[in-house]
Amino acid sequence: MIDFEIKPEQMNIEQLGPARIDNPTIKGNVCCFIHETDRVLYEDVVDHTTDNASTLVTQVSMERAGPREKIYFDPSKTRAGIVTCGGLCPGINDVIRAVTIALSRIYGVRHIYGFRYGYEGFLAQFGHDVIELNPEVVDGWQETGGTKLGSSRGPQPTSDIVDCLERMGINILFVVGGDGTLRGGADIYDEVKKRNLKISVIGIPKTIDNDLMFIDESFGFQTAYEAAVQSLICAHIEAKGAYNGVGLVKLMGRHSGFIACSAALAMSDVNFVLIPEVPFTLEGEDGFLRALHRRLETRHHAVVVVAEGAGQEFMDAVNATDASGNKKLQDVGVFLRDAISDYMKKENVSHSVKYIDPSYIIRSVPANAADGVYCLQLGHDAVHAAMAGKTNLVVGRWHGLNVHIPIRVATMRRKVVDPTRPLWRSVLESTGQMRWFNE
Amino acid sequence: MIDFEIKPEQMNIEQLGPARIDNPTIKGNVCCFIHETDRVLYEDVVDHTTDNASTLVTQVSMERAGPREKIYFDPSKTRAGIVTCGGLCPGINDVIRAVTIALSRIYGVRHIYGFRYGYEGFLAQFGHDVIELNPEVVDGWQETGGTKLGSSRGPQPTSDIVDCLERMGINILFVVGGDGTLRGGADIYDEVKKRNLKISVIGIPKTIDNDLMFIDESFGFQTAYEAAVQSLICAHIEAKGAYNGVGLVKLMGRHSGFIACSAALAMSDVNFVLIPEVPFTLEGEDGFLRALHRRLETRHHAVVVVAEGAGQEFMDAVNATDASGNKKLQDVGVFLRDAISDYMKKENVSHSVKYIDPSYIIRSVPANAADGVYCLQLGHDAVHAAMAGKTNLVVGRWHGLNVHIPIRVATMRRKVVDPTRPLWRSVLESTGQMRWFNE
Amino acid sequence: MIDFEIKPEQMNIEQLGPARIDNPTIKGNVCCFIHETDRVLYEDVVDHTTDNASTLVTQVSMERAGPREKIYFDPSKTRAGIVTCGGLCPGINDVIRAVTIALSRIYGVRHIYGFRYGYEGFLAQFGHDVIELNPEVVDGWQETGGTKLGSSRGPQPTSDIVDCLERMGINILFVVGGDGTLRGGADIYDEVKKRNLKISVIGIPKTIDNDLMFIDESFGFQTAYEAAVQSLICAHIEAKGAYNGVGLVKLMGRHSGFIACSAALAMSDVNFVLIPEVPFTLEGEDGFLRALHRRLETRHHAVVVVAEGAGQEFMDAVNATDASGNKKLQDVGVFLRDAISDYMKKENVSHSVKYIDPSYIIRSVPANAADGVYCLQLGHDAVHAAMAGKTNLVVGRWHGLNVHIPIRVATMRRKVVDPTRPLWRSVLESTGQMRWFNE
Amino acid sequence: MIDFEIKPEQMNIEQLGPARIDNPTIKGNVCCFIHETDRVLYEDVVDHTTDNASTLVTQVSMERAGPREKIYFDPSKTRAGIVTCGGLCPGINDVIRAVTIALSRIYGVRHIYGFRYGYEGFLAQFGHDVIELNPEVVDGWQETGGTKLGSSRGPQPTSDIVDCLERMGINILFVVGGDGTLRGGADIYDEVKKRNLKISVIGIPKTIDNDLMFIDESFGFQTAYEAAVQSLICAHIEAKGAYNGVGLVKLMGRHSGFIACSAALAMSDVNFVLIPEVPFTLEGEDGFLRALHRRLETRHHAVVVVAEGAGQEFMDAVNATDASGNKKLQDVGVFLRDAISDYMKKENVSHSVKYIDPSYIIRSVPANAADGVYCLQLGHDAVHAAMAGKTNLVVGRWHGLNVHIPIRVATMRRKVVDPTRPLWRSVLESTGQMRWFNE
Repeated sequence: MIDFEIKPEQMNIEQLGPARIDNPTIKGNVCCFIHETDRVLYEDVVDHTTDNASTLVTQVSMERAGPREKIYFDPSKTRAGIVTCGGLCPGINDVIRAVTIALSRIYGVRHIYGFRYGYEGFLAQFGHDVIELNPEVVDGWQETGGTKLGSSRGPQPTSDIVDCLERMGINILFVVGGDGTLRGGADIYDEVKKRNLKISVIGIPKTIDNDLMFIDESFGFQTAYEAAVQSLICAHIEAKGAYNGVGLVKLMGRHSGFIACSAALAMSDVNFVLIPEVPFTLEGEDGFLRALHRRLETRHHAVVVVAEGAGQEFMDAVNATDASGNKKLQDVGVFLRDAISDYMKKENVSHSVKYIDPSYIIRSVPANAADGVYCLQLGHDAVHAAMAGKTNLVVGRWHGLNVHIPIRVATMRRKVVDPTRPLWRSVLESTGQMRWFNE
Repeated sequence: MIDFEIKPEQMNIEQLGPARIDNPTIKGNVCCFIHETDRVLYEDVVDHTTDNASTLVTQVSMERAGPREKIYFDPSKTRAGIVTCGGLCPGINDVIRAVTIALSRIYGVRHIYGFRYGYEGFLAQFGHDVIELNPEVVDGWQETGGTKLGSSRGPQPTSDIVDCLERMGINILFVVGGDGTLRGGADIYDEVKKRNLKISVIGIPKTIDNDLMFIDESFGFQTAYEAAVQSLICAHIEAKGAYNGVGLVKLMGRHSGFIACSAALAMSDVNFVLIPEVPFTLEGEDGFLRALHRRLETRHHAVVVVAEGAGQEFMDAVNATDASGNKKLQDVGVFLRDAISDYMKKENVSHSVKYIDPSYIIRSVPANAADGVYCLQLGHDAVHAAMAGKTNLVVGRWHGLNVHIPIRVATMRRKVVDPTRPLWRSVLESTGQMRWFNE
Repeated sequence: MIDFEIKPEQMNIEQLGPARIDNPTIKGNVCCFIHETDRVLYEDVVDHTTDNASTLVTQVSMERAGPREKIYFDPSKTRAGIVTCGGLCPGINDVIRAVTIALSRIYGVRHIYGFRYGYEGFLAQFGHDVIELNPEVVDGWQETGGTKLGSSRGPQPTSDIVDCLERMGINILFVVGGDGTLRGGADIYDEVKKRNLKISVIGIPKTIDNDLMFIDESFGFQTAYEAAVQSLICAHIEAKGAYNGVGLVKLMGRHSGFIACSAALAMSDVNFVLIPEVPFTLEGEDGFLRALHRRLETRHHAVVVVAEGAGQEFMDAVNATDASGNKKLQDVGVFLRDAISDYMKKENVSHSVKYIDPSYIIRSVPANAADGVYCLQLGHDAVHAAMAGKTNLVVGRWHGLNVHIPIRVATMRRKVVDPTRPLWRSVLESTGQMRWFNE
Repeated sequence: MIDFEIKPEQMNIEQLGPARIDNPTIKGNVCCFIHETDRVLYEDVVDHTTDNASTLVTQVSMERAGPREKIYFDPSKTRAGIVTCGGLCPGINDVIRAVTIALSRIYGVRHIYGFRYGYEGFLAQFGHDVIELNPEVVDGWQETGGTKLGSSRGPQPTSDIVDCLERMGINILFVVGGDGTLRGGADIYDEVKKRNLKISVIGIPKTIDNDLMFIDESFGFQTAYEAAVQSLICAHIEAKGAYNGVGLVKLMGRHSGFIACSAALAMSDVNFVLIPEVPFTLEGEDGFLRALHRRLETRHHAVVVVAEGAGQEFMDAVNATDASGNKKLQDVGVFLRDAISDYMKKENVSHSVKYIDPSYIIRSVPANAADGVYCLQLGHDAVHAAMAGKTNLVVGRWHGLNVHIPIRVATMRRKVVDPTRPLWRSVLESTGQMRWFNE
């Protein structure tokens, strides 16, 4: 069940105008087009003994993504732009490539522009060039991590961005970014509407933390926790290489511990997973340090994974924010490393803490195979949505099917690890970490 | 919509008897138990303009997997066995390990037996030993591909198997295998029931081809197509290394082309994907060979992926079957390699075909991170189901949640690539292969 | 000791003419230039009790490679060409890139041409284009296996090739290829000399089999056996996955079993290594099949590695050669697979043979780190040699230092695995294969 | 030429006593034994125009490693121990495994003990257990990084160690470690000799920094710089992902920049390599910061690699040492990251520095294929040396052949990158870093 109030009609998708042009689908492609009325239920768990089954049909649902029989934009006259914002995440280049290929090969759009270094790329003052994209240019981009367009954090004046879009005659803007970026996209949509322009704004949600509601898993997330596993293996090796060795790894996750949880399940020798969603105490008989101590007494090594947003309450809060407006977090990894060392010294425990902070080595790897497939399908469906004249939406995957979600709905809340759901249960089952607490 | 008739009640799960023992869940684990009445809808795509929305609540649904508040078996007296059958698939060792860990650490079961070399392991005549499993024994198994228990193809007499289970006092049998193996498990269940024994039979479906109904993706499938991508990259390199070079790769997929499709999407330089579900002609203006010829004339290299079950109609059928009863397929890879060479020679096209058959190098790799997480959760939920006294079921994942499916329902039909659904559409969009046919 | 007669003076390097131009070495590079008289001894093992120590100083030695203080060609007027021939091998693109970068960045040469598809690229009749190379064009090439220039097998008329060089005003030709290709380079040198042209011909020896005399290890060899290890691991997993499972892998090595030996040492679960240099019998009490049988009786699985050139005597010889003039070998892998199956059936041994032929997946991978460094240094030193006006030489590595070897000397004999030297000893020590023979 | 005085006789190897027992070489192994008088020249570069050629035969040379026809220890009565000390390095487990296999399988030694956690393992007060090693126990160890025996830093009282060896009846001690550890081994040898014991002390030199004289490359070094390449790729991706992005990577290398140099050559997009052997200034027109600034002005991104021992002079020296007695270095990575940021802010350059410190993720990876082969051969030859009754030596590789070097000679000096030799020249050629300095 969705845990905050949202009305089914909030899930309706905006349309720039009637779609009247036949979809020039690839020759010989007999695939059925997607019906406009097809929707995917948000909730598909029923309990026939309660009343949720009967109310299900009036529930929140999302429009299915995919090619429509009729499109809105005339491909021969369409000019599209794409911009990538915020931190790196595996798969961005796959998405850029997929959007370019779909526009060019499937629809025949000839003018595709890559704006450089995030929203800065729309403002003349920064002097960044614009890259013309076509299938030859993006050839092989999917083999490389990062973003070939470059990125930057933080917003730029919406009005200036829309000036640029108007000046360049852009009809479709693809925005690849996290919640801040996407909200910026919604602002662009508002300004476009105010000016009565016919520009489609399509978001492709990028969050390595996998913290977006209404999306099974964000692209790059699987690759990210797969990359994180390498660091966990190294931490395990280091931990076992020393008497009372502790391998401590800080993983991404400002508010949501998905990477920490999934990586710990994938590499099942982790002993403690600390995430922002599940508070813990540090000191005292029930605290983490004593629990770690018990583990060392018994097994003489331990692997600890901490999400970057965990344990913030233990550190002096600093009210700083970064350029994207994200609250600046204290470094819980360094804090814990020192806290563990101090505690063990105090307790006279010969020990060795090896601390690993692999974030830049995780977020810059190329997409793995599953993310590669996912990014390709996201990019294609973003183009299908745009060409059909839809706007103000993000393309995401729900229950294995691509869907459309209004931008402001998609960014309304953050998805977090629910301690009562299977993921966290699996973490507790796999790590067995509770046995070391309050033993 | 499910495309064959099945009644909702066919999805009901058998129970050996009332579950009356408190679940000794891991200390401090506050996770909610799964309600017995929670179910996951088979279909979650609705169309409010038709009548399917209103009928949805009476639709087919599956019981949710996970720990129950009460269990049936007394862990201190429970003896469990596990057997792995059929061909190798990434993740088998992960599953064996997860089952062992869950039985031992979560429930405290002390007698866990690994039967060796598939169903042969139950029969004295083969002389295979039985391995006692516990967390120390299975430590690190997930890092290795294949099956540490060994496997074999084909059935053994059900009665002899149940004799063995009785003799050893086994209460729970976990069967890891494909549809033949699982049907063998259902036969064991029937025999067990006939003898009025209280033995739970739990299937964990293994099919590298991803061809099981009622399951999002089978474990190991993602890893398999990820491994296949390496061969596609090599085929591409080989193809470009020679003038009119053709890289031809045969991938697994006896009846279902999922690996071929997904690998081709993940490595997006594939030009032709041939699968059993989409017939094609070989000769003539509209045939594959002429299409490949057109591609070479334009681009001077090509990458072709063929699923092993494709194009069987071109070869002399042989009515042989292997030990598992699978129809023996002719080698379409070798056939195509020769057919391409013959055609090109006839057409006087200087060319070079490099043929790669990577099957053993795909199926024996260790599970990747996502499959690792999946196998761990499958294994744990298989144990939860068994301990709760459920039987005659397989554990699978549907729409991202683990569920229980009666064995005979799960093996009723084969899942195939539907040419009207997004996967095949993406393949056509990505390869652009239709443009070379009947140009 | 070198085991065939060669006179020290045969190692002298040809020079096109006096080098009079100051070497425009990179700014700030204080590195010493290489003295023309510096040489690396062929043999550095001495035995002071015999007379070899005293004769050492008159021994065969090779000229050291590297930048000279004076160069022969004026970079601003120099036009260079590069061609890649024969089968793929890891590192070819690294070499092309290194040659391009060194010519362009170190020396300032502005005209660099990549000839396509081997020696075919010089002949108008094939219609292949020529690629202009510069640092931007070759950017990132080292990340990809194969050859971006394309390749072909077999010679083309020397006279036509030199016509092309003259017509295009080429001053330096880099030839990347195996012994056939290099002999072709020597022929080009002869023709160039006959015509009294000032064209430097520099060979960069490529042989994945590592079978060139006077070279520690050929580039790509390490990467190749590293890639082969993956197949050995899979073969091992497959072997253990079945009762009496046999994992059989055929590796490259037409006349020299270096890849088979090194891969078997790197993945130390191999039980039998069969190479062309060490004959064995198949049948009988002392034969390989009986030895394999003994192994299965004891351990119930086995991993066998066979080099493609081994056991040719067991098959009907066919006097065919491929386009490069290499004798066409019978497929010993398929032969052995069938021979093992036939034998085991005859002996009534339940068994399972899994045969893997990974050659195309080995030779097309990108160079690993060590080969990357090696290719870069080979490419740079090839350019240093050429710019200094040297010709008719190959650049290789001896005892860890790059050296110059006259082409015809380098291709005089094939290097083979010496059964009395440490490599084969290590194979016997590691596999313990002798214990299964004539037990 | 060796650049410090050493007399040829200093290279002589100690022998515990006459070797009179026939070497029970593996059955059927016809390999020649190594002659006691075979030696490998230290220097093999000659210049016939100077007098070095004639003096070569009286030069320093090393005894060849390998099996001898006669051995000193009776395998049936031999007890061997092995200990691993200092920081992790790829290949340690390979070495442990190779030593165990060679003792057990080649010679038939039945008592092999693994001492845990470095030299601590010999002292009762630490309470560490001793692991009995045999081929079954070490099976698969080579697939894992780190050391299965555990390690610790720093010496323990030599007398106590030898007491332990006497008490346990150890005849051969294999010591795997860096220069401190090896000197500890030499101390053990001295004490053993003083007590007139017949215990062979064999060192297997482990230094991830590759800074040991008389050794081509130390084991694990290739793997280490290969692992480092991953971080360089990520740094490059991060650098290009932001406007004026700087990817800064700190690599191991306390006194020797070999890893930094080799990794930068293997991943040829590095722009600056800073090593301890080549001093640089930070500030001013000729300083590194200005050079980096120039690079950003032109190319808008840069990748910088710094060895941990570089630039120590810029930081306040602290006279601390770690438990091994190594001088504690200030963290040049963090220092440079801040110095770059401060400079760029001062110069009003919009920029972004991404700092990566991958050391624990490098040193704990498993050995790659080449290091796997190397470790296996080192381990076998260490056993051959010990069984022959040799002592007080390390086994290393010189010019591609394994040799014996007296421990105190091997640890006499540190090997450093010579700025006048090919390695550093290649770094300058590849990075082109000099062009940004004093332009």
